[in-house]
Amino acid sequence: MPRLRLAMAQTNPIVGDRAHNATRLLELAEDAYSQGAQVFLTGELALTGYPIEDLALRNNFLALSRDAVAHFAHELAARGLGDMAVILGHPDGPIEHDDSATTLHQPARAHNCASVLSHGAVVATYAKHHLPNYAVFDEFRTFIPGTEGLIVRAGGTDLGIVICEDLWRSDGPIESLGTYPLGALLVPNASPFERDKDEIRAPLVTMRAREMNTHVAYVNLVGGQDDLVFDGDSMIVDPQGNRLAWGRRFQEDLILVDLELPESDIGAALPPRTHRCEVTVREPGQSPLAPRERPTDDDTAILWEALVTGTRDYVTKNGFPSVILGLSGGIDSAVCATIAADALGASKVYGVSLPSVHSSDHSVGDAEELARIQGISYRVEPIGDVVAVLDAQLGLTGLAAENVQARARAIILMALSNQEGHLVLTTGNKSELAVGYSTIYGDSVGGYAPIKDVPKTLVWELARWRNALSTQRGETPPIPENSIEKPPSAELRPGQTDQDSLPDYDVLDAILELLVVQGLDRPQIVSRGFDSDLVENIVGLVSRAEWKRRQGAIGPRISSVAFGRDRRLPITSRLTAFPPSR
Amino acid sequence: MPRLRLAMAQTNPIVGDRAHNATRLLELAEDAYSQGAQVFLTGELALTGYPIEDLALRNNFLALSRDAVAHFAHELAARGLGDMAVILGHPDGPIEHDDSATTLHQPARAHNCASVLSHGAVVATYAKHHLPNYAVFDEFRTFIPGTEGLIVRAGGTDLGIVICEDLWRSDGPIESLGTYPLGALLVPNASPFERDKDEIRAPLVTMRAREMNTHVAYVNLVGGQDDLVFDGDSMIVDPQGNRLAWGRRFQEDLILVDLELPESDIGAALPPRTHRCEVTVREPGQSPLAPRERPTDDDTAILWEALVTGTRDYVTKNGFPSVILGLSGGIDSAVCATIAADALGASKVYGVSLPSVHSSDHSVGDAEELARIQGISYRVEPIGDVVAVLDAQLGLTGLAAENVQARARAIILMALSNQEGHLVLTTGNKSELAVGYSTIYGDSVGGYAPIKDVPKTLVWELARWRNALSTQRGETPPIPENSIEKPPSAELRPGQTDQDSLPDYDVLDAILELLVVQGLDRPQIVSRGFDSDLVENIVGLVSRAEWKRRQGAIGPRISSVAFGRDRRLPITSRLTAFPPSR
Repeated sequence: MPRLRLAMAQTNPIVGDRAHNATRLLELAEDAYSQGAQVFLTGELALTGYPIEDLALRNNFLALSRDAVAHFAHELAARGLGDMAVILGHPDGPIEHDDSATTLHQPARAHNCASVLSHGAVVATYAKHHLPNYAVFDEFRTFIPGTEGLIVRAGGTDLGIVICEDLWRSDGPIESLGTYPLGALLVPNASPFERDKDEIRAPLVTMRAREMNTHVAYVNLVGGQDDLVFDGDSMIVDPQGNRLAWGRRFQEDLILVDLELPESDIGAALPPRTHRCEVTVREPGQSPLAPRERPTDDDTAILWEALVTGTRDYVTKNGFPSVILGLSGGIDSAVCATIAADALGASKVYGVSLPSVHSSDHSVGDAEELARIQGISYRVEPIGDVVAVLDAQLGLTGLAAENVQARARAIILMALSNQEGHLVLTTGNKSELAVGYSTIYGDSVGGYAPIKDVPKTLVWELARWRNALSTQRGETPPIPENSIEKPPSAELRPGQTDQDSLPDYDVLDAILELLVVQGLDRPQIVSRGFDSDLVENIVGLVSRAEWKRRQGAIGPRISSVAFGRDRRLPITSRLTAFPPSR
Repeated sequence: MPRLRLAMAQTNPIVGDRAHNATRLLELAEDAYSQGAQVFLTGELALTGYPIEDLALRNNFLALSRDAVAHFAHELAARGLGDMAVILGHPDGPIEHDDSATTLHQPARAHNCASVLSHGAVVATYAKHHLPNYAVFDEFRTFIPGTEGLIVRAGGTDLGIVICEDLWRSDGPIESLGTYPLGALLVPNASPFERDKDEIRAPLVTMRAREMNTHVAYVNLVGGQDDLVFDGDSMIVDPQGNRLAWGRRFQEDLILVDLELPESDIGAALPPRTHRCEVTVREPGQSPLAPRERPTDDDTAILWEALVTGTRDYVTKNGFPSVILGLSGGIDSAVCATIAADALGASKVYGVSLPSVHSSDHSVGDAEELARIQGISYRVEPIGDVVAVLDAQLGLTGLAAENVQARARAIILMALSNQEGHLVLTTGNKSELAVGYSTIYGDSVGGYAPIKDVPKTLVWELARWRNALSTQRGETPPIPENSIEKPPSAELRPGQTDQDSLPDYDVLDAILELLVVQGLDRPQIVSRGFDSDLVENIVGLVSRAEWKRRQGAIGPRISSVAFGRDRRLPITSRLTAFPPSR
């Protein structure tokens, strides 16, 4: 019975940075080779990063990527790794387009591919068949579907290849590979993190392994890319559905495993529309592989890591030296500061208290304590003088007088950002973004929003979890109890609390989960037992706040429906029935 | 030889507002009937408006739309219009989805349809076959492709139906209808305006009419919907390619035409995968139809109308009573104010001069003159005091000191908006949005950006054209000559002009046209004869400004690639080659 030593590279690419991504993959390939790997598998589009969005429509981008693949194969051989088969994820194009379309616009000219590299050459290429075009995905826009399957003969066994969405669909490649005797199915993925997604991903991989009676090697990317966070969670499952190895969560990893494979040879009896290529690989390594730890299943820990990873990678990949944010003494800014400190280190986090005449003493006190505990930079910049000038000049009252305070804070934060070079973090949570309980060009200013996809009730849960973690570790909890316990308030007028204008957050978040994440309509939500007027009011608030959300910063997506490309709704709309009576 | 009196309704729907849209269509149907129409054709999704985006994923939205179609058919009959065949554009669903996908996400469950309504019933439905998923279109996300054709037998002739994109593709329905003897091909469209698009649309319609040897009745929507503007440009072309009638541009219209049709009957010899339904219609009207005027071909006039229409409909459909904008005395704010006054009337436009210590006297003078000529509300709110407080408190220098001025203006405009209820218009042009030559949360604030897709050189052209128009009409030109002629400056420091940091706008705009609209890469642009360092610099500026554009207001799209959903690029990206030497 042949044995195959397989390596999976779970990398954190930078979109477009072929030099960085390829160099990192080569390092891992050398590491894998030194450990006796015979086959080396990368994530989806590991060479260019994912998603490349409309870069996939640019011929020069595609041509340079094609060059990079060829050079990568050459470089492997030059480093003496030619007899390790490498399966590399990359876009392939430009492809000449069919002329049946009369259009003004640039059509897709690329495939989303995985190529087999061996002995310095690109031996074969598989093109992704199923292109996701829902949720955050726009692959019909950027890619052309592949139509043919690929089987790679290596190390005395046959290996199937499919890419990401192909595995989720029972038609197409999965159907044609069927129950052909494959040693393993190799699956490069770019599967973004979503809360509890691991509870769907692992069962899917297990289901396919069992029904196809083969090993499934599932490798995912890691790291933050704009609003997406890739969590890794790579895995190898045997034909009985047992997990043989795990990748770390949110961190780069090289996963090696020895697969015991049945003697089998598909030979010429190929599945429909499927090609086969044969590559010679070295003998498998003999040295024992270190056993691998199973990553945590603590959902709160995983969520926190997702937010930290998204924030770290946005800051570092975009080359910001540091971040700055307003510290109100409230829970949102406290959690954002803690995420930033965990991501970048306290020395790169700058907190500013921006008190107004309405700010309570504890606001400044709690902010100062947070900064002191965590050792982040802290200063106080009162907004009173600016606000006084504006009130005097414009005679502001009511909402206008409230918003001007939030905007005075914004102008100070942005000025400090311009003056000192920090990225401004904006601290709005998902609940307030949903109902528009924020001041546009005020508390919404900033380049990145760490808790944009975190409902208020979950913000509290994360804060308590993070404090408990420090307590466990014998450290001082980073977030002042008072910031967690006090009633939330924007402090834009005396004695104001959020609940003056909003329902309790547990009720609000329950309704928003049904409305925004599950996409239910008002009658469906009311049927779950919520007050009809309340639901109607919230639906109206969410709809009227769309224009503000369009102008909001991006932030890490942790739900199956974040505000942004997950949820594409018109600003201008009016939902009525015909006949109107309904 | 039978004669068919066809009516085409070119309407301006409000997305989601089925009550409004249906009521308006019924008014036009009654008008058409009173003029003897036998067949009444609407635009694509005329019942719900277009695009409905992710509303198409909501079962309740689809169910209410289905009800509305049935009720619309009933209403037609109740009003005595039952013997006029009506072809109505609407989404149809929910449709049960195939289960071959294992996914977390809501799949498309609707078709993009045109239904045949006759004698109170929905007789047959055609589902759009080709779903555009490029440029601003996401129809693969929201719809399921139709697979079957439809021919309607009415008034002694056979009528084919296809929807929008179907007409642009030579495969699919156009191929199967082929050269069957159709009296006419009926085509509902939702085809957004793009500069010079009429030069592609009309030849396409003519080509199809000739190759299929039939009349083509092309009806489009009109009006603004968020960033899209529909221009109408509906037309009827005979088999020889002669245009028999035109719709007005950007305005609702009812177009009636008498078609002389060959005796023919496809009978049972149907094209592949095509159904046929027969409806009885009244005798054609005998009263002569008023001849129709050909709409203007003046490209500048058309562009201006697109900007005015987009601005008017955003303001009115969203229920704003008025607009407010900063008047700098420069060309951009002058043109935006004029667009707003043409769209809404001068009484609904509020101009504010926001001078700083660096503002030249002519800035205030030119702003004041513009307001005086056009009769728009005008006030002066100096920013000196606010800026002085911030400079003193923060000790700002350089860029920070410049940006704080733009943000002081923003805070005042937003305060006046909050206080008085105006929509804030932001006056940035496409050239400065491209290179990031604007202050985020400063001059970029506002809910709508009338010239966001207008390059600076075109802003000047439009200003001169608009002034000439007034001169022709014997009116005072609305835009002060000085605002057109003076060198552009942000006036954030003494003696500053745009060309301190940017190339001449004719060079910049030429490069941006190649880079942004034509999607060329740096080497391709350099090969057109532009300086390599300059191009590299501009490419870098455009890329680094992506995060700002993401937070910008929407505005009317007039090019084939506007910033927004036309151009989806990552914020986080770094374009390098491998090997790096390249």
